[in-house]
Amino acid sequence: MTHRIAIIAGDGIGTEVMPEGIRALEATAKRFNIDLEFTTFEFGSCDYYLEHGKMLPDDWFEQLKGFDALFYGAVGWPDKVPDHISLWGSLLQFRRRFDQYINLRPCKLMPGIKSPLAGREPGDIDFYVVRENTEGEYSSVGGKMFEGTDREVVIQDTVMTRTGVDRVLKYAFELAQTRPRKKLTSATKSNGISITMPYWDERVVEMAKGYPEIAVDKFHIDILTANFVLHPDWFDVVVGSNLFGDILSDLGPACTGTIGIAPSANINPEGHFPSLFEPVHGSAPDIAGKGIANPIGQIWSGAMMLEHLGYKEAGDAMVTAIEEVLSEGDATVLTRDVGGEGTTASLGKAIADAI
Amino acid sequence: MTHRIAIIAGDGIGTEVMPEGIRALEATAKRFNIDLEFTTFEFGSCDYYLEHGKMLPDDWFEQLKGFDALFYGAVGWPDKVPDHISLWGSLLQFRRRFDQYINLRPCKLMPGIKSPLAGREPGDIDFYVVRENTEGEYSSVGGKMFEGTDREVVIQDTVMTRTGVDRVLKYAFELAQTRPRKKLTSATKSNGISITMPYWDERVVEMAKGYPEIAVDKFHIDILTANFVLHPDWFDVVVGSNLFGDILSDLGPACTGTIGIAPSANINPEGHFPSLFEPVHGSAPDIAGKGIANPIGQIWSGAMMLEHLGYKEAGDAMVTAIEEVLSEGDATVLTRDVGGEGTTASLGKAIADAI
Ligand SMILES: CC(C)[C@H](C(=O)O)[C@@H](O)C(=O)O
Ligand SMILES: CC(C)[C@H](C(=O)O)[C@@H](O)C(=O)O
Repeated sequence: MTHRIAIIAGDGIGTEVMPEGIRALEATAKRFNIDLEFTTFEFGSCDYYLEHGKMLPDDWFEQLKGFDALFYGAVGWPDKVPDHISLWGSLLQFRRRFDQYINLRPCKLMPGIKSPLAGREPGDIDFYVVRENTEGEYSSVGGKMFEGTDREVVIQDTVMTRTGVDRVLKYAFELAQTRPRKKLTSATKSNGISITMPYWDERVVEMAKGYPEIAVDKFHIDILTANFVLHPDWFDVVVGSNLFGDILSDLGPACTGTIGIAPSANINPEGHFPSLFEPVHGSAPDIAGKGIANPIGQIWSGAMMLEHLGYKEAGDAMVTAIEEVLSEGDATVLTRDVGGEGTTASLGKAIADAI
Repeated sequence: MTHRIAIIAGDGIGTEVMPEGIRALEATAKRFNIDLEFTTFEFGSCDYYLEHGKMLPDDWFEQLKGFDALFYGAVGWPDKVPDHISLWGSLLQFRRRFDQYINLRPCKLMPGIKSPLAGREPGDIDFYVVRENTEGEYSSVGGKMFEGTDREVVIQDTVMTRTGVDRVLKYAFELAQTRPRKKLTSATKSNGISITMPYWDERVVEMAKGYPEIAVDKFHIDILTANFVLHPDWFDVVVGSNLFGDILSDLGPACTGTIGIAPSANINPEGHFPSLFEPVHGSAPDIAGKGIANPIGQIWSGAMMLEHLGYKEAGDAMVTAIEEVLSEGDATVLTRDVGGEGTTASLGKAIADAI
């Protein structure tokens, strides 16, 4: 069975880490006898926008919908195209049109990576952030009135639907079921945001009834961010709205020192549409073109993709290879951000070899 | 000149730390010859709600508006009254009706306090979070439709006005002017929240034109929370919307290890209405009634109140006294959260004595 993978490298270091992601996937495919077929697309980058006046061709949906997965680099280059245009014109379209309503991000303290938190060791921090990925605070409803005057008012709606909230909660509860600690934390702000957030809380209470074995707690987002720093060991599966999940899934990797190497999956669990796998880091214009970007986020995202396609063992082997290379700590191999003097290619090659 | 201070202790540990706040203020008033007159109010607590069916009497505005400042403990006791009712019925009313449009919170690594961040020393972290405090994501506009069915949809509007955005930015720029580093960081999320947040960015650019000496940068809230952990030394004055400011002003104190002792000021800069001073911590039902709550947040809030009333030297003396007592590290005096075995009263008394 051939798995057809669409490749969109995007901007900046996205184009540099992508080849290493593919190299690692090819090594894994060979070892585990998996048939992957890659097709590369040029659209979805700011350069494409400068040439065509849009981020994607009109028929992007038709072109991509038949693939088994999208393997994605990073998009955005604010000096060329404002972020809200490049992002809403590409990544956020994919998430919404392909109904990738789960954004899943592991937060794991890896060997050889220094946490900015005092006294934390590998094993101490190991949780998932499950983020709602299609609605909530990322809405397209709203507008401006009395423009350009002192009375100017700007409104944007947060929109939550029962369908949207329930399905992400269900996914998070199911994930918590598979974990040894069976713990779920809900991110809320129902003490201040008085309509949508109490609703979110209600749905959590309702959903929890179906999962009596899961220990459920909730924190308001302000104190929750504080607890990520103070007590990262408390967490197992953390579920949040689009915005809260976005914040927590950058803060979590920051606490594990892995912001530059963390992966993410944008999942359509029913498989009606392709899911999308991308590193958490962005296009990083400041270091683009130097060949020093760390490819681990891209490779780790590839591991999540294989797991999603049904090859859990193969995905685990990729993560193990990453951990091995990090543990060895060979400075000629590792990139600068993790204490070495190597390049994107040297690190990518070492991981592919380890696989 | 007599300064009339309204006291509202609220719930839980609010009622325990308040007497220590008053004790410290009385010591300071004596030393600096300041005439303070305290009037205590019973409303604004969940017990008041249980008795009267509301958090505040109908004429609260009339009763309080003539005071020079409100000195506030903490409100909320979810087992008695849901948070969104107790908070919207009290604290959030004060902020809005008294147009306390600035929420100001120092994030400062104090001597004797252990930061959860590795390798950070007092002096390394010292910044202010300036939060918009009346509009934005904390709105009262929105509702529910198709209630109780699968089509259920819940909407809440984020509302930003030019008046509201500009005045908090102006305050933040003015504050940055008074600081040696003259640096301002704006919290945004204009890549994802596509209407209100690009507007916020626009107003920052516009306001910055009037302050050419200030170095301005901006970060999206997700990576900004990460940078609080990774690079807390980057920040000087950080300005954000109501929600983003709320998050950052819990996360900042968490990074300095001061979440239990940080103060905050809710300010109406024009002095048309009384400003309100309160610790960042909440009512902490879990430790209430034990006499072990740390009173420093309340005392430090008192220091901010004196500064606001025009007594900067007196406010500084209170902060110095706090620093002295923390540096001494006497375990019989300090409360448990800062490594001692003392009580709310022992720590409060030591600080009052130091003043
Ligand atoms: C209690 C809550 C409504 C409040 C807020 O979100 O403003 C608190 O977190 C704060 O920061 O003062
Ligand atoms: C680039 C941006 C729109 C995006 C988001 O906020 O979703 C990013 O931060 C992410 O988390 O994937």
